[in-house]
Amino acid sequence: MALVLARRRLQIGHTSTGDTMLTPALQNSRFLKAARREVTDTTPIWIMRQAGRYLPEYMSVRSKVTFIELCKSPELAAEVTLTAQRVLGVDAAILFADLLPMLEPMGIDLEYAKGEGPVIHNPIVTASEVDRFRELEDVGSMQFVFDAVKLIRRDLPADIPLLGFAGAPFTLASYAIEGGGSKNYIRTKSLMYTDEGAWRTLMQRLARSLVRYINAQIDAGCQAVQLFDSWAGCLSPDDYRTYVLPYTRQVIQGIKPGVPVINFLTGNPALLPLLREAGGQVIGLDWRVNLADGWKTVGHDVAVQGNLDPVSLMADLPTLRRRAKDVLDATGGRPGHIFNLGHGVFPEVPPESVKALVEMVHEMGRHAGSR
Amino acid sequence: MALVLARRRLQIGHTSTGDTMLTPALQNSRFLKAARREVTDTTPIWIMRQAGRYLPEYMSVRSKVTFIELCKSPELAAEVTLTAQRVLGVDAAILFADLLPMLEPMGIDLEYAKGEGPVIHNPIVTASEVDRFRELEDVGSMQFVFDAVKLIRRDLPADIPLLGFAGAPFTLASYAIEGGGSKNYIRTKSLMYTDEGAWRTLMQRLARSLVRYINAQIDAGCQAVQLFDSWAGCLSPDDYRTYVLPYTRQVIQGIKPGVPVINFLTGNPALLPLLREAGGQVIGLDWRVNLADGWKTVGHDVAVQGNLDPVSLMADLPTLRRRAKDVLDATGGRPGHIFNLGHGVFPEVPPESVKALVEMVHEMGRHAGSR
Repeated sequence: MALVLARRRLQIGHTSTGDTMLTPALQNSRFLKAARREVTDTTPIWIMRQAGRYLPEYMSVRSKVTFIELCKSPELAAEVTLTAQRVLGVDAAILFADLLPMLEPMGIDLEYAKGEGPVIHNPIVTASEVDRFRELEDVGSMQFVFDAVKLIRRDLPADIPLLGFAGAPFTLASYAIEGGGSKNYIRTKSLMYTDEGAWRTLMQRLARSLVRYINAQIDAGCQAVQLFDSWAGCLSPDDYRTYVLPYTRQVIQGIKPGVPVINFLTGNPALLPLLREAGGQVIGLDWRVNLADGWKTVGHDVAVQGNLDPVSLMADLPTLRRRAKDVLDATGGRPGHIFNLGHGVFPEVPPESVKALVEMVHEMGRHAGSR
Repeated sequence: MALVLARRRLQIGHTSTGDTMLTPALQNSRFLKAARREVTDTTPIWIMRQAGRYLPEYMSVRSKVTFIELCKSPELAAEVTLTAQRVLGVDAAILFADLLPMLEPMGIDLEYAKGEGPVIHNPIVTASEVDRFRELEDVGSMQFVFDAVKLIRRDLPADIPLLGFAGAPFTLASYAIEGGGSKNYIRTKSLMYTDEGAWRTLMQRLARSLVRYINAQIDAGCQAVQLFDSWAGCLSPDDYRTYVLPYTRQVIQGIKPGVPVINFLTGNPALLPLLREAGGQVIGLDWRVNLADGWKTVGHDVAVQGNLDPVSLMADLPTLRRRAKDVLDATGGRPGHIFNLGHGVFPEVPPESVKALVEMVHEMGRHAGSR
């Protein structure tokens, strides 16, 4: 452990106020330069769910443990995180973790049923049940996440930032209320529409908890964080503004200054102006919008991340290359673009295609960056 | 049958060119006036899936037959269509039918498994299988639909238009390829990306078949039609433009002149300019976009339909009223708005709330219309 800490100090120091100080290698990394909209030698790329099920190295680890055991084992979570960064050659690592375990210490009884995804045994069905949903005062119960962060940061190349992440308040609230995936979010919206007080209590507790949880990830060694509002696309702009935006903004404003936040939402391009309003130095775009239009909508004074349709990775390499080029071309060579898919990579995708995509973007992005 | 035809002639005549002539009562109906962007006494309203499972009158019929038996029985399909229009007091009836039966004579082996929705036993998995997907040359196999249209038109109030409908080419192609519902449309997009020739053959056959099928609905007695592209929201604007728009446009251009087409797509507001480009006198908006913004985007020289979030019907009546008012207010009192949900009504919705919504819109729309 002494060695771990000694090695970590080489990369990251802390000021007395707790703000994260970056080593020059990280400060000048492609990813963080792009997040600050500085010119880079080529376009940085990472892939949402890059350590996921499509990768044989991941499946090999996963064959020995359950999904949640993997999430809760700092050593294994670190291993799959590091392996994915190394085999793909991407410009950032993202902590292998899941959105939902942070709900457990808040009072949610969570189970990962075999082959069925997460199941919540005590969803918040009525407004009165919001009371048993506790704020996360002490993040100690999430120590396995912070331990994974420390292990990853220790072994990650010095110029590769580590991203932390969490679900945005709406997506977490939806899970807690629906008890799992949902097609129409009937329970979530019903609570939102019929008991605004209960809804705001729930979102407030989530927002405060998220600030603590995310800042502890940063303290442990993350250089940037991504908020995933994977389900907020089901909302109308008016509902997002009224019931969601204040809490996402509260989270982003509570995150330690100087740490870039990627604010990502999928499923509704009409929410992009509001996503920008909620904050984040980087706005994550899904593939439903043309990147040039999306960037214009959120404003050229923020960086953007995205936005190749993930199914592009099922195509032959020339087609994949043409589609990746379309995304790069849509930037107009403007600095401040982080290449990614518009959503997570699928288990069905050939790993060789993901590796090829990373190489293509690094090669073609060189020209884009020099424009 | 002589009586049927005699009564029908009272409402609809045909010119020698086959164009549908409207009775004055239909010509001046709220729905058709709004579709032409003329001023109406109040805002017309109908509800997608208005004859659906939330309605006890429907469930009573449905308890005696399977879903597909109901679809294929002209008498029963007519009964549930007429009942819904009558009990709700809506300004249009929509033919009770399903999107998929038209794929059967095209070579798709379709089954409605109990409680599981449609299952296709021979989906088009590879490009070579597109060849066994035949164009619908003769619509005679869909006679049960046209018979239902005739029965409905016979008994519908003289001033209530009957809407026909069909799936748009992309949504039908997705069903044929995925074999049922889909989360990520991996197979559909893979075919689209990797074998453009096979994709275009498939879409061309669907487009030509749809023109015949829809025009036969019009010949049987429909006064307007809605195209449902329920799944196209998974596409990027560039993909929609390249792979989908030409075929939706081909369908709309092939529909008999003078019959309003509602061109409806759900799941991606960034496609609205392209939906407009594809055609339709009325553009259907889902709830993901603010109606004022959506109308501005598609242009004020078309009418719009929509766009209340369907979950609003789960709220108490004062909340429902406030939310319906927000939609009406977003029109700015401009003629050419047909009120609807942004998608189909859910089975969980209380029928009384749907009835109340119709009354609210008729009452509040009166003020909107007089602005």
